Amino acid sequence: MSKLVIVGTVAFDTIETPFGKTDKILGGAATYIGISASNFEVDGAIVSVVGGDFPEENIDLLKDKGINVEGLEIVKDGKTFFWSGKYHNDMNVRDTLTTDLNVLADFNPVVPQVYSDAEVVMLGNLHPMVQMGVIEQMQNPKLIVLDTMNFWMDSALADLKSTIAKVDVITINDEEARQLSGEYSLVTAAKKIMEMGPAFVVIKKGEHGALLFHKDEMFYAPALPLAEVFDPTGAGDTFAGGFSGYLAKTGDFSFENMKIAVIYGSVLASFCVEKFGTERMVNLSKKDVQQRLEQFKKLTQFKIH
Amino acid sequence: MSKLVIVGTVAFDTIETPFGKTDKILGGAATYIGISASNFEVDGAIVSVVGGDFPEENIDLLKDKGINVEGLEIVKDGKTFFWSGKYHNDMNVRDTLTTDLNVLADFNPVVPQVYSDAEVVMLGNLHPMVQMGVIEQMQNPKLIVLDTMNFWMDSALADLKSTIAKVDVITINDEEARQLSGEYSLVTAAKKIMEMGPAFVVIKKGEHGALLFHKDEMFYAPALPLAEVFDPTGAGDTFAGGFSGYLAKTGDFSFENMKIAVIYGSVLASFCVEKFGTERMVNLSKKDVQQRLEQFKKLTQFKIH
Repeated sequence: MSKLVIVGTVAFDTIETPFGKTDKILGGAATYIGISASNFEVDGAIVSVVGGDFPEENIDLLKDKGINVEGLEIVKDGKTFFWSGKYHNDMNVRDTLTTDLNVLADFNPVVPQVYSDAEVVMLGNLHPMVQMGVIEQMQNPKLIVLDTMNFWMDSALADLKSTIAKVDVITINDEEARQLSGEYSLVTAAKKIMEMGPAFVVIKKGEHGALLFHKDEMFYAPALPLAEVFDPTGAGDTFAGGFSGYLAKTGDFSFENMKIAVIYGSVLASFCVEKFGTERMVNLSKKDVQQRLEQFKKLTQFKIH
Repeated sequence: MSKLVIVGTVAFDTIETPFGKTDKILGGAATYIGISASNFEVDGAIVSVVGGDFPEENIDLLKDKGINVEGLEIVKDGKTFFWSGKYHNDMNVRDTLTTDLNVLADFNPVVPQVYSDAEVVMLGNLHPMVQMGVIEQMQNPKLIVLDTMNFWMDSALADLKSTIAKVDVITINDEEARQLSGEYSLVTAAKKIMEMGPAFVVIKKGEHGALLFHKDEMFYAPALPLAEVFDPTGAGDTFAGGFSGYLAKTGDFSFENMKIAVIYGSVLASFCVEKFGTERMVNLSKKDVQQRLEQFKKLTQFKIH
């Protein structure tokens, strides 16, 4: 099985949407990425950190999904990263209510020795220097995918740019692409971001789907229109997990295959938003994924005679 | 050739975008619909009204596109409908600066006798009672498509609903679909609007593409991502013109063929926004359309082995 190294937060979230409110539930970029990627036959390992307050059952949940947690450091006397947020009717917009970095503040990632030869590295949202630290521990990765957010553009732009220069693919949302490039048009924004290093740029547009750019080529995958978007938390990470998981499994990093990876990312993200937190993702069957893939085909494929 | 009756405004527009400002130029829903539909082999006729200030050269332009203008009433001592608006960076949002109804205020549409047996009717944006007046003059239309906007929902909702009950397809933007249905989710909104009468609902999302709904089926056509959206005025009407023109030409009103119609609508709209007003649309070749159709295929089509 291909190895996939996954970096990102492992967290507690409290989420409020027009449909309800959660207690402290399992969240974090690496959590969503790992669970999403586990839908492919890959040997995924999470590199992250939690506090002594992180329940054993959450670790078991990850293990049950076949995710290696050797690189998940537990700081016994520390507290797990906590985020709380509130969504409104337009779920593309959210208010962050709390961000407690806790154990993340001093995190030095350690990639388990047996995973340092992984072909694919998925750098989920974290400080760009933590992401860089992981890149430096890898022996000869064939594909490095980076996800990030506006927070690092505001607070650590120089670090972020030096990390971006080292990766093959960046996944980013539309507003962040505009902020990073200084361009309003997403086509021009993607061009400028490619000049910063990545050969591929994926721009995530939430309910409006995702765009893949490579050289002069473009591909568009819609989000599945849903009657109810229950909770969008983790949808972008779930997309990244499906994207990188599929690529790790197939080992084919061509533009043509990356189209399919974007579709799988969208397929998995469409489940994520159906329930609060990771609830829908942990109960996903192969058949569910296959059926939804067929829905995506129906949604987008046409024949002109 | 199949006949296509087109109703809607024929107007003067003054447009300001981040890229510049126009003088009074040719505009109006029926104008854009007619020019767009003229890309298919159809016998299109515009039913509308202008004032004595409407220059002969504009009428010649429509005639040159093979559009019948027998139903374009000229009120010698009246003034042509005038609209002016301003767009910002986010071209999905615009400020209307002026709306002078002028001759439109007392318009009684007359469908030329020879077009009363047309198979397809495209009701462009106008007062719903004017749209109804046209429906009543048709002998046995096979397909009636209605476009409308929030203005009529605010000012003539009951009239609008009785017109909607008579049509087969409604094209509407996302905010209008939400307003008309009272539902935030576009999937649920489309379901409620289908209950009002139309068997097909097309929801236009501007730069985010268009969704086609029919019973429990969905189809999604993206908008072509462009480096520069110069002027979005008329894009929705151009979409409607491509959609109805293709359907009139083929005479096939199945869901499968309507998918292609949505793609052609999106293809034509992608040209409309490249220049101010109708400038790009009047200089469109068959080859241009064919090439862009290929771009749409590349943008959306994928093969999973």
